[in-house]
Amino acid sequence: MYHDRYILTLSCVDSRGIVAAVTTFLTQQYGFIIESGQFGDASTQHFFMRVEFSLQAGAPSLKMLRSLFAEQVGAPFDMRWDIFDKNKKARVLVLVSKQGHCLHDLLYRTGTHQLPIEIPAIISNHPDMASLAEWHKVPYHQFAEGESKPEQEKKILALVEQHHIDVVVLARYMQILSPELAAKLSGRAINIHHSFLPSFKGARPYHQAFDRGVKLIGATAHYVTDELDEGPIIEQEVARVDHAHTPDDLAAIGRDIECQVLTRALKYHVEHRVVLNGKKTVVFR
Amino acid sequence: MYHDRYILTLSCVDSRGIVAAVTTFLTQQYGFIIESGQFGDASTQHFFMRVEFSLQAGAPSLKMLRSLFAEQVGAPFDMRWDIFDKNKKARVLVLVSKQGHCLHDLLYRTGTHQLPIEIPAIISNHPDMASLAEWHKVPYHQFAEGESKPEQEKKILALVEQHHIDVVVLARYMQILSPELAAKLSGRAINIHHSFLPSFKGARPYHQAFDRGVKLIGATAHYVTDELDEGPIIEQEVARVDHAHTPDDLAAIGRDIECQVLTRALKYHVEHRVVLNGKKTVVFR
Amino acid sequence: MYHDRYILTLSCVDSRGIVAAVTTFLTQQYGFIIESGQFGDASTQHFFMRVEFSLQAGAPSLKMLRSLFAEQVGAPFDMRWDIFDKNKKARVLVLVSKQGHCLHDLLYRTGTHQLPIEIPAIISNHPDMASLAEWHKVPYHQFAEGESKPEQEKKILALVEQHHIDVVVLARYMQILSPELAAKLSGRAINIHHSFLPSFKGARPYHQAFDRGVKLIGATAHYVTDELDEGPIIEQEVARVDHAHTPDDLAAIGRDIECQVLTRALKYHVEHRVVLNGKKTVVFR
Amino acid sequence: MYHDRYILTLSCVDSRGIVAAVTTFLTQQYGFIIESGQFGDASTQHFFMRVEFSLQAGAPSLKMLRSLFAEQVGAPFDMRWDIFDKNKKARVLVLVSKQGHCLHDLLYRTGTHQLPIEIPAIISNHPDMASLAEWHKVPYHQFAEGESKPEQEKKILALVEQHHIDVVVLARYMQILSPELAAKLSGRAINIHHSFLPSFKGARPYHQAFDRGVKLIGATAHYVTDELDEGPIIEQEVARVDHAHTPDDLAAIGRDIECQVLTRALKYHVEHRVVLNGKKTVVFR
Repeated sequence: MYHDRYILTLSCVDSRGIVAAVTTFLTQQYGFIIESGQFGDASTQHFFMRVEFSLQAGAPSLKMLRSLFAEQVGAPFDMRWDIFDKNKKARVLVLVSKQGHCLHDLLYRTGTHQLPIEIPAIISNHPDMASLAEWHKVPYHQFAEGESKPEQEKKILALVEQHHIDVVVLARYMQILSPELAAKLSGRAINIHHSFLPSFKGARPYHQAFDRGVKLIGATAHYVTDELDEGPIIEQEVARVDHAHTPDDLAAIGRDIECQVLTRALKYHVEHRVVLNGKKTVVFR
Repeated sequence: MYHDRYILTLSCVDSRGIVAAVTTFLTQQYGFIIESGQFGDASTQHFFMRVEFSLQAGAPSLKMLRSLFAEQVGAPFDMRWDIFDKNKKARVLVLVSKQGHCLHDLLYRTGTHQLPIEIPAIISNHPDMASLAEWHKVPYHQFAEGESKPEQEKKILALVEQHHIDVVVLARYMQILSPELAAKLSGRAINIHHSFLPSFKGARPYHQAFDRGVKLIGATAHYVTDELDEGPIIEQEVARVDHAHTPDDLAAIGRDIECQVLTRALKYHVEHRVVLNGKKTVVFR
Repeated sequence: MYHDRYILTLSCVDSRGIVAAVTTFLTQQYGFIIESGQFGDASTQHFFMRVEFSLQAGAPSLKMLRSLFAEQVGAPFDMRWDIFDKNKKARVLVLVSKQGHCLHDLLYRTGTHQLPIEIPAIISNHPDMASLAEWHKVPYHQFAEGESKPEQEKKILALVEQHHIDVVVLARYMQILSPELAAKLSGRAINIHHSFLPSFKGARPYHQAFDRGVKLIGATAHYVTDELDEGPIIEQEVARVDHAHTPDDLAAIGRDIECQVLTRALKYHVEHRVVLNGKKTVVFR
Repeated sequence: MYHDRYILTLSCVDSRGIVAAVTTFLTQQYGFIIESGQFGDASTQHFFMRVEFSLQAGAPSLKMLRSLFAEQVGAPFDMRWDIFDKNKKARVLVLVSKQGHCLHDLLYRTGTHQLPIEIPAIISNHPDMASLAEWHKVPYHQFAEGESKPEQEKKILALVEQHHIDVVVLARYMQILSPELAAKLSGRAINIHHSFLPSFKGARPYHQAFDRGVKLIGATAHYVTDELDEGPIIEQEVARVDHAHTPDDLAAIGRDIECQVLTRALKYHVEHRVVLNGKKTVVFR
C-alpha cells in the first residue's frame, strides 16, 4: 500500500506553527503522513522533525515537491531540511581491519534485507576479510604494503566519490581518521567503539574495563569527528559481566554488543532518524 | 515557561489531513506544540494521536477551545477526543489487600511528586495497611467482617463517586471484580498481575513459574475487564531468575518488578498517553 | 596453562559430605579445580554439581579416573555422573526449514570458534539453505519430495548414528518430532521456539503476540519432549516492542533474540552446564 | 530446616587441594554445605571462596569451629578468612544529605525484611530526612550549624563505635570523606555514585551525561577509598534515555537505578558475597 515512501527531516529555531505549516503543506500536496516525530530542545530553542509520508494520486514529482517545500516552508522558517526517497537504498562503504564480526553482521543483514543498504565496496589494511567479501560478491580493496596514511585516505575518498557513497562505516577499523578526512566525512562516517563512552576511550577498552573491574561492558556507535571517540553518540548498549571474565571473555561478549549497536545506529542513520544537534544527536526511533 | 499545559488525545478513521487539521487548529488558537505522538493502525485503518501543548497570549479559555475543537475538527473527522489540563492531578482510589509493596511505592512516589496524582482514599479487605495509610494521611476504608461482595463493591463505587475518582488501581487487591463493576470502571481501572501475561493467569503465578522452570519472571499492568487477566495490556517487564530461586525468591524479585510496572502504567495513564485500540493499547511514550 | 580440561557433572540424593568426597577424590588424583557449581534442590532433596578441572603431573588416564570415581564416589552416593574431556568438541546435527537466521548464526559462531562444536551435517525439508551450507563446507541433506514423516525421521536417526551426533538442534525446523524420535533423542535435542513460553505455544507465535498486544516478545530454547513446547527450558530472552510493530516487525526483532537464546542454550549444553531436574533444568552459568 | 546458617569466606594463594581441605573440614565438623562459590584469579594466582553451611547435630560451637578451622585449614594455606553467623544482622549507619530516595528505600526494605540489616542510626548535614527517620523509629543525628569537617567525621566515628556498626552507607551523602576516615572505614563503607563509573566522576553527573548526549545512564555502588569515585566497584546498572530527557528527567530516572544498585550492593556485602581483590571485587551472586 505504502510502496512509495518519502522522509522529510528538518530543524530550525523553534516557534509556534511549524508543525501546522509542515503538515498542511504535505496535506495540500497529497501527502499521507505515516509516521512523525518531533522534538523541541528547550535548552537551545531549536526544533527538530522527521515525517515519513506517501504521496497519493495528484501529488507533484519529488523534484517539484522539494521546490515547493523550499519556497513555502523551508525559507519562511529558515530551516535546514531534506526530503529523501525511502526506497532509495543508502550506499555504504565499510572500512575494516582484522576483526570481521561487524562486517560479517552487516553483510548478512544487507543480504537478507534487514538493513536497507547497498555495500558497493569494502576497504581494509589487511587481507583477512577478503574471502568473506568475495562470498558476498562485494569488491574488496586492500591498501598496498607500506602505503602512507595520506595515500590510504586518498583511496578511501576516491571510493566514496566513485561509488556515490552515502555513509562510511568504520566496522572495527582500528585506525584513526585524519582531521581532514574526518571533516570531509562529517555527519556521514559512523564508528563503532568497543566501550560505553565516555568510559575507556582509545586503545584496548576491554583491558581497561577488566582493570577497572566494571560490572557492565558496552559499545558505542558515534559519528566520527577529529576528536578521538568524542563524536555525537547515536546508540549504546551494555551487557552484564563479572569478576570471572577475562579480557578475552569481555571481548567475546562485547563483539555481540558491537554488532547490535552498529546495526541499530546504521539503520537509524540510513532511515534518516538521526539529526545532529550540536555535539549530540536527536534520534527519532 | 510551559506552566500551563494541555493534552489533546484523539482517535478516528484514518485519512489524509488529520494531523494538518489538528495542528493548524492549535496554531490558530495560539497553541504551542510541545510533544506529539501519532499512530496509524494499518490493520484497522484507525488513527490515534496525542498532543501536548501550551497556550500563548491571545488563546481562548479551555472551555472555548473545547467548543471550537469539537466544531472545527472533532465533528468533521468523527473523532473520539478529549482535552485535559495537564496540571490537574488525577484522583486515584487504591484497592489493596495484605501485601503493601505496590501501595507503599505509590504513596511514596505521590508524596515526592514523581507521580502526578492524588490519592484521596484507600480501601481494603484487611487491616494490614492502615498504619501506612495513616502516616501518609490518606483515609483508609476497610470492609466490615463478613460483608458480601456486592456490598463491598457498592462501597468502592460510593468512594469513586464521592471523591471524583479518575482511576481505580488494584495494587495487589487479590479479588476479582464482578463483571458489573468491571464494566462500570471500563478503561479506568488498572490491575497489576504478577506474571508476564498471557503466561500464568490466575492464582499463584510465582508458583506456576517455579513449576514450569522459566528463566525470566514478569509483571503486567492491564485494564480490568470482565475476563480475568485478559484486559488490554499497558506495560510489562521481566527479570532474570534461575534454578536456585524458590517460589519465595521469585515473589521477592517480582515485587520490585510489580512496583516498576504499575508505576509506569499509571503514569502513562494519568498523562493520557494510553489510548484503547480494541483489546490492545496504544501507548505514546 | 589449562589446556587439558575435564568436566564432571553429577546428581544424587542430597546428604552431608558429597562436595568433600568429590573434591577430595579430585585432589588425590592430581586434579586442579578451575570452576565449580552446585545446587541442592530443597523441594526434592536432590543435589547437582558441575566441576571443571585440569589434571596435573601424576594424574591417571581419563579412563582410569572414571573407573576410580565410579568405585570411590559414584557408587557410594548412588550418583548419576559423567566426566567429559572439555577439548572434545560436541558434534551437532542441525535441522532447518526455510528460515536461515539461526543456522547462519550457528555456522558463523562455529567457524569463528565462538561455539565449541562441529557441525558434520545439516538436514532440511527445503532446498533454501543449501548454498549457505555449501559455503561453510557442511554436507546438506534434503528430504526427497513426498517423503513420509517416518521416512524423514529415519534419515535423521541415520545421520545421528553415522556422525556420532551428540546433540540435535532444531533451528526453526517448523516440524514436530514424533513421540518416538523425541524419546530417542531425549535430553539431546534442543528446539528454539519463537515465543516466551509458556505464552504462545504452537503456530505463529508472533501473530499471537501481536493479537494479544504484549509489550515484550521473547524466545525460548528447550529440550524436545513429546509434548509440544513443554520440554525443560534451558534459556529465554525478551525484547521490548510497542503498538506500532506489525507481526512482521515482531518477527524481525524476534529473529535476533532467537539467535541469542539458541546460541546461549547450545553453549550451556555442550559445556555440560545443563543438568535435567525433572521437567526443569539446572544451568550452571 | 536450615535456620542456623553460617558463612565462610576465604582467600589465599591458589593451589591444588584448597576446596577439598575446606569441604572435608566442614563435613567432619557436621557442616552441611548449602551454597558454595569459588573463583581462581588466573591473573594473580589468587583463590577466593564463599561457603554457606548449616551445622547438624554433633557440631562444635561457632567459637570452637573457628579455632579448629584456623589451625587445620586457615594456617596451612595462609588464608585470609572469616566465619559469620548468617542470622546475625549487619548493623548499618546511613549517611544522608537532602535527597531521601535511597534512605527511604533502605528503611522500607529493612522494615519489610527484604534486607537483613539493622539501622541503629542515621546521620546528616541537613534536617530534611528527620521525619522519615522518626516514622521508622531510627535516631537521627544532625551535624551542628558551622561544624567543621573533622568534627563531623569525629561524630561519624563515634556512632560507628557506639553502635558496633558493620557497614557505613553513603546514601547520596554528597560529601567526600577525608582520607583518614576513608582509611579507617576501608572495606566497610559503601557509596552510591549516580553515574556509570568510570564515566562522569565527581559533581553533577546527570548534567555531564546530558551534555555528552549518552543513550544510557547508570549508577555505581563502590567501596569508599581516598580517591574520589575510584573505589572497588560492587554493582552497576543502567537505564535507557533519549534526546528528549532533560537533566531533571535523567535525575528522576536515575533515582530508581540508584536505589536498585545500592540495595543489591548492600545485600551482597552483608551476605558476605563480596571479597576484595585488589582494586576490584569478587561478587559471589
